[in-house]
Amino acid sequence: MAFRFLTSGESHGKCLTAIIEGIPAGIPLKPDDIDKHLARRQQGYGRGDRMKIEQDRVLINSGVRHGMTTGAPVCFEIENKDWQNWQVTMSSQAVDINNPSISELITQKKITHVRPGHADLPGALKYNHQDIRNVLERSSARETAARVAVGALASTILGIFNIEIFSHVLRIGPVNVDSESLPVNYNIIREFAEKSELRCADYSASIAMKKAIDEAKEAGDSFGGLFEVVALGVPVGLGSYVHWDKRLDGLIAQAIMSIPGIKTVSIGLGKASSEIPGSKLHDEIYPKNDDSKDYQRKTNHSGGIEGGISNGNPIVLKGAMKPIPTLKKPLKSINLENGEEHIAHYERSDVCAVPAAGIVGESMLAIVLLQAFLEKFGGDSLEEIKVNYENYCNMYQKR
Amino acid sequence: MAFRFLTSGESHGKCLTAIIEGIPAGIPLKPDDIDKHLARRQQGYGRGDRMKIEQDRVLINSGVRHGMTTGAPVCFEIENKDWQNWQVTMSSQAVDINNPSISELITQKKITHVRPGHADLPGALKYNHQDIRNVLERSSARETAARVAVGALASTILGIFNIEIFSHVLRIGPVNVDSESLPVNYNIIREFAEKSELRCADYSASIAMKKAIDEAKEAGDSFGGLFEVVALGVPVGLGSYVHWDKRLDGLIAQAIMSIPGIKTVSIGLGKASSEIPGSKLHDEIYPKNDDSKDYQRKTNHSGGIEGGISNGNPIVLKGAMKPIPTLKKPLKSINLENGEEHIAHYERSDVCAVPAAGIVGESMLAIVLLQAFLEKFGGDSLEEIKVNYENYCNMYQKR
Amino acid sequence: MAFRFLTSGESHGKCLTAIIEGIPAGIPLKPDDIDKHLARRQQGYGRGDRMKIEQDRVLINSGVRHGMTTGAPVCFEIENKDWQNWQVTMSSQAVDINNPSISELITQKKITHVRPGHADLPGALKYNHQDIRNVLERSSARETAARVAVGALASTILGIFNIEIFSHVLRIGPVNVDSESLPVNYNIIREFAEKSELRCADYSASIAMKKAIDEAKEAGDSFGGLFEVVALGVPVGLGSYVHWDKRLDGLIAQAIMSIPGIKTVSIGLGKASSEIPGSKLHDEIYPKNDDSKDYQRKTNHSGGIEGGISNGNPIVLKGAMKPIPTLKKPLKSINLENGEEHIAHYERSDVCAVPAAGIVGESMLAIVLLQAFLEKFGGDSLEEIKVNYENYCNMYQKR
Amino acid sequence: MAFRFLTSGESHGKCLTAIIEGIPAGIPLKPDDIDKHLARRQQGYGRGDRMKIEQDRVLINSGVRHGMTTGAPVCFEIENKDWQNWQVTMSSQAVDINNPSISELITQKKITHVRPGHADLPGALKYNHQDIRNVLERSSARETAARVAVGALASTILGIFNIEIFSHVLRIGPVNVDSESLPVNYNIIREFAEKSELRCADYSASIAMKKAIDEAKEAGDSFGGLFEVVALGVPVGLGSYVHWDKRLDGLIAQAIMSIPGIKTVSIGLGKASSEIPGSKLHDEIYPKNDDSKDYQRKTNHSGGIEGGISNGNPIVLKGAMKPIPTLKKPLKSINLENGEEHIAHYERSDVCAVPAAGIVGESMLAIVLLQAFLEKFGGDSLEEIKVNYENYCNMYQKR
Repeated sequence: MAFRFLTSGESHGKCLTAIIEGIPAGIPLKPDDIDKHLARRQQGYGRGDRMKIEQDRVLINSGVRHGMTTGAPVCFEIENKDWQNWQVTMSSQAVDINNPSISELITQKKITHVRPGHADLPGALKYNHQDIRNVLERSSARETAARVAVGALASTILGIFNIEIFSHVLRIGPVNVDSESLPVNYNIIREFAEKSELRCADYSASIAMKKAIDEAKEAGDSFGGLFEVVALGVPVGLGSYVHWDKRLDGLIAQAIMSIPGIKTVSIGLGKASSEIPGSKLHDEIYPKNDDSKDYQRKTNHSGGIEGGISNGNPIVLKGAMKPIPTLKKPLKSINLENGEEHIAHYERSDVCAVPAAGIVGESMLAIVLLQAFLEKFGGDSLEEIKVNYENYCNMYQKR
Repeated sequence: MAFRFLTSGESHGKCLTAIIEGIPAGIPLKPDDIDKHLARRQQGYGRGDRMKIEQDRVLINSGVRHGMTTGAPVCFEIENKDWQNWQVTMSSQAVDINNPSISELITQKKITHVRPGHADLPGALKYNHQDIRNVLERSSARETAARVAVGALASTILGIFNIEIFSHVLRIGPVNVDSESLPVNYNIIREFAEKSELRCADYSASIAMKKAIDEAKEAGDSFGGLFEVVALGVPVGLGSYVHWDKRLDGLIAQAIMSIPGIKTVSIGLGKASSEIPGSKLHDEIYPKNDDSKDYQRKTNHSGGIEGGISNGNPIVLKGAMKPIPTLKKPLKSINLENGEEHIAHYERSDVCAVPAAGIVGESMLAIVLLQAFLEKFGGDSLEEIKVNYENYCNMYQKR
Repeated sequence: MAFRFLTSGESHGKCLTAIIEGIPAGIPLKPDDIDKHLARRQQGYGRGDRMKIEQDRVLINSGVRHGMTTGAPVCFEIENKDWQNWQVTMSSQAVDINNPSISELITQKKITHVRPGHADLPGALKYNHQDIRNVLERSSARETAARVAVGALASTILGIFNIEIFSHVLRIGPVNVDSESLPVNYNIIREFAEKSELRCADYSASIAMKKAIDEAKEAGDSFGGLFEVVALGVPVGLGSYVHWDKRLDGLIAQAIMSIPGIKTVSIGLGKASSEIPGSKLHDEIYPKNDDSKDYQRKTNHSGGIEGGISNGNPIVLKGAMKPIPTLKKPLKSINLENGEEHIAHYERSDVCAVPAAGIVGESMLAIVLLQAFLEKFGGDSLEEIKVNYENYCNMYQKR
Repeated sequence: MAFRFLTSGESHGKCLTAIIEGIPAGIPLKPDDIDKHLARRQQGYGRGDRMKIEQDRVLINSGVRHGMTTGAPVCFEIENKDWQNWQVTMSSQAVDINNPSISELITQKKITHVRPGHADLPGALKYNHQDIRNVLERSSARETAARVAVGALASTILGIFNIEIFSHVLRIGPVNVDSESLPVNYNIIREFAEKSELRCADYSASIAMKKAIDEAKEAGDSFGGLFEVVALGVPVGLGSYVHWDKRLDGLIAQAIMSIPGIKTVSIGLGKASSEIPGSKLHDEIYPKNDDSKDYQRKTNHSGGIEGGISNGNPIVLKGAMKPIPTLKKPLKSINLENGEEHIAHYERSDVCAVPAAGIVGESMLAIVLLQAFLEKFGGDSLEEIKVNYENYCNMYQKR
């Protein structure tokens, strides 16, 4: 594995942390490269109040010196702004349960009414927990902030090689964008999405989406939806067909499906590919133009991946997200302490997090692409990688 | 990783091989446990003539003694029955190109007219190949026979713990099964599918599917479709939410998306989950009945996975397969030797391989589940694993 | 891999961090379990002044709640006490080099006179660094404090299963312990070593060792030496012969050789095993006694490992450490800026760190053993692992 | 991991197999590149009769076409020449134990008298085997033939970049080479070793070694010894100090210690490094000469590795091998069936295998170096790697 990373941290713990090992030396990196993506993750119509509290900022604790990576492991820390209110509940050390106020707080924060749709019940059975808080603090989507920090680092490096990744929202609950009304040019979609509260490039759809979210909120309900992630500028030849676990599409599918709430991942035309005959689907190949350096396609139904390898076209994927399972109007469930019926626990939550999931999707795609990129091009410093990259591009473009 | 495996072999090479390391000792295993799944992979209306030639059989070259695994790496070999016709073309050793008949054969078998939709073009550019045969021999779906052998081993072990996996076809090209007409009981679906030439549990749909395949064949075209894979008897607690790359849904998504031609993977209700509100989606939880050992659900919209962990319900996934890109009525493409326009290469191929993809899907799911199973239960011999497994089941069922 | 971890941090950076993923739930853990080993690493006659400054303490940032692991990734942070003096030199962000005082500081702390024996020269060439500080801050043995924190966690878990690990010093430079004078009982060796400033169980040797260190210090020189690490209570069956990379001896060798300065790793009698005939070496096997649960050995020349698997006897290894390469009386070297001759850089350093290396050795052994232990016994909570462990012990002891 | 491999096969099974995944395309490879190393492994004074039977030859079953790697997984098979005599004993399928001749054979080949020093006893307890043959068939050093095949492939690739690896014997049992009499030039040592029946470059020592082996054989005893492996031409910058598990010395230590019988691994001066002061040990650095492209050292006490990274000097390691534990004059042991005293099993064995262990050492070093090489230089075809390699060498040599 070219680079690897681990994340840690609980939803209401002291901080999230990520260590990233295998980042080459000589990459310019400043906190804002990370913070801007952390902020993008926190936005989106339908988020809960917590987003206002948090305003995540990264601390770069190691691996970067004077604005440049050194090759040493990079450590990111994101403090939880709300930590002071949770120091007792989430203390790593034993607390004095003989102290009545502490004891009361602990009891009050204990959760035993498992929420359907979350890790609560299977998590408690797997790890033998009595207090569901021991599960949900880590199974919470708060953890994705750490992934976004890692993904921002990956995007920064990919950006040096003109690989750009963005996401936009295609549906919230039942409200679809009108695909006819979407701009054809990816850069315009990107621009529109960045300006939209819902990361949606279709303005009139976004109005209907907000309305749906408002109604769900009113009803104590929640909505999922559909997002698309696009990577522009990916060179031919990332991933491989030679072994199943090297296929770029498989790696992308894992990365996207691992985002909390995602139930479907598709690449290119996705399911529609399976409905039309081969003669209408596959992206025919045309000779290079005078001014191009590569073979041409007039379509990109494959979503930029053929045989598990990037083919030089934009990589296009979609993720479908289920509605958030924490509902103000709670579902039927049980009390884990006695096994009896009880409605599910409710804890402050979003009504809709699809735009944020799209940002996490960008991050996961950036991570997968940087992995494949560094594996293909090797090198320990930016200078070395640049020459290797150009060498390869020249090799295949001259053919 | 609890167990790991590597596969090798080319479509027209001497043999496919798989080495599987990490299989516990004491598992009863006979060739037929593998062969029956190899045969299931080769069936299906719409397959090419090659399936009649092959009739794959496994040779167990190591790791099994007197019908029992020993803990040593297991080696499976599947000979290519057609090898004698390809010995020169696919020779591992240099051939005498001064010999005119050899030279002519080599030239004749060289491929430079890349096929859109396959690994041909990106594979040639990545690995710097001039002859696309060096790509397609490995990127061919023939490689999935080795995966099915590994998956059959995994299924055999899972079967000891009453975990059963099966697949069936839900659509071929535009022809859907009528979901209303599908049996409710999974065992009946399984039984119907096993009897169907298309692995389809809806008899009248299967007639329409065959017609669609016949028409595509007539037109030199091809069709993809949709299959479902179901695992029954999976215990609570495989996979985890604690780190993104341990989530069972992510691992399943990679495994399924890595099957050649798959463009969409979904779990449970999949995309439909993202269209309805949370209050209608999540699987409510009910107390244990007297005669049950676990909490109850009346629905399984989640497809058996919550928070990245198995929740004790059937694991249900779908894979959408694009049509096979090798077309008798070939697509527009180029000649890689001179970059000029040329129609794509055609080599004997299937018209539709969705039923086979479903079998590969079973295998990939079995592999992922056995990985998670062995990680959770540890142990080096079947006896040891059995006690660990029962110990855990007792622990959580007594709660 | 049952559990995995990454560490980050520079010698004079803000902090060291470790994330450990894969730790079961339900393990009691308090900061002192870690701090006591951090303190043991910092002691030892011959250490530099820095050890007095540091007094490392762990912050447990995640994965532990109310004194108990939750199954979520554990994050340890060790702040550098000296950080305030290095904030500019080691700033992760760009500094204002137009500010003369900053510019002067940066220039002053830049290092170009590479030190033979360190990573300085190969590290600078590999990562394309001009300032050796970008290498040495991470190649410094300060990094081993993070490993000791991880090892302390591993030891805490192993301790629950009565697996105890300790180290002692056998030689400093040319001064050996008198092997005849060493106690026969490992617990007494351990007790003596814990009380010794040099972690040496032979009191009179330790006096001569101190004298050698004093003389080296006086001469601006340094000394290495030899340490032994012993693990008591390891069950039969960790590691395996079935694949080369599962052998416990190989995994131990990597872990010990990876400690900065180690040039030789040996197990059991080590090199002496290769000098005597087989008939005098191998540890003969005797029937179980009435009061024992296992087969008996009267010798342990193998150091507790046969065929790459633990055999139930104490695991015994030795590591030989070269002298520290940073010398007050510097070696001949070059200036990397112009390639010309220049004596090597000197920065505050220890004269001898063998006792500390022994503590790091304990940690690395604990990490390897916990890996193998968790792989063999599986389980996600302490309760589950305990039953699996007892199940296995009963199985093989009844035979 | 740049490339990975798995091996399978039993000592008396049908064949050994290795699958190697991650080998770049375009590498010229012929069977003799492998066979010559297989033959070198089988030679050496003191080997048993089996070596005459075997004469291993590789079959290249996949990944190579017309003498050139394709990028697809490479599969090597080494048939066991003696297989016809073991077909029943080692059958993968159940045998007819009602047939008296089969039943008798099986009983006769069953082993229950465990051999001290082998995996027999811990292996049987770990995997719950009653018949030690289920252990020893895989724990046998026969398995190293597969590693040598993989190592030969690695050496072939490294050889293209002028990295050459060889081994020689420094001691058999108590008989040392006279280090003063060894040639100074590595190429002469290599040449002498290749010509010696014991792979020993000191002719008079080799005579004494043979005598020691003859005497051991006479006495039903066995001898170990010491070998050295040297890699010439390794570029600066393989491995790294940035994380413990990337250190080249640690990776080498694991690889060498994993060879059956090895009890000590040392790099460079090894243990002697720990006996002399720093001022006398570290390899001082001198400016580049006019005709050189790199900094100079006059010594190589470090064995070519500083701070876990190759420094451009020869990599030099030593492995100490214990005597083979299978003794004609057997050791005291027990019968696993009833736990009572019984002398250990004897099965045809070598008296001394140190020269062969040196060949396996070459292979393991080649594997580690190729891993690090491919990680550093990336690339999917030989052409691409060559340019990347030259790019890097130019970069650091111009400094």
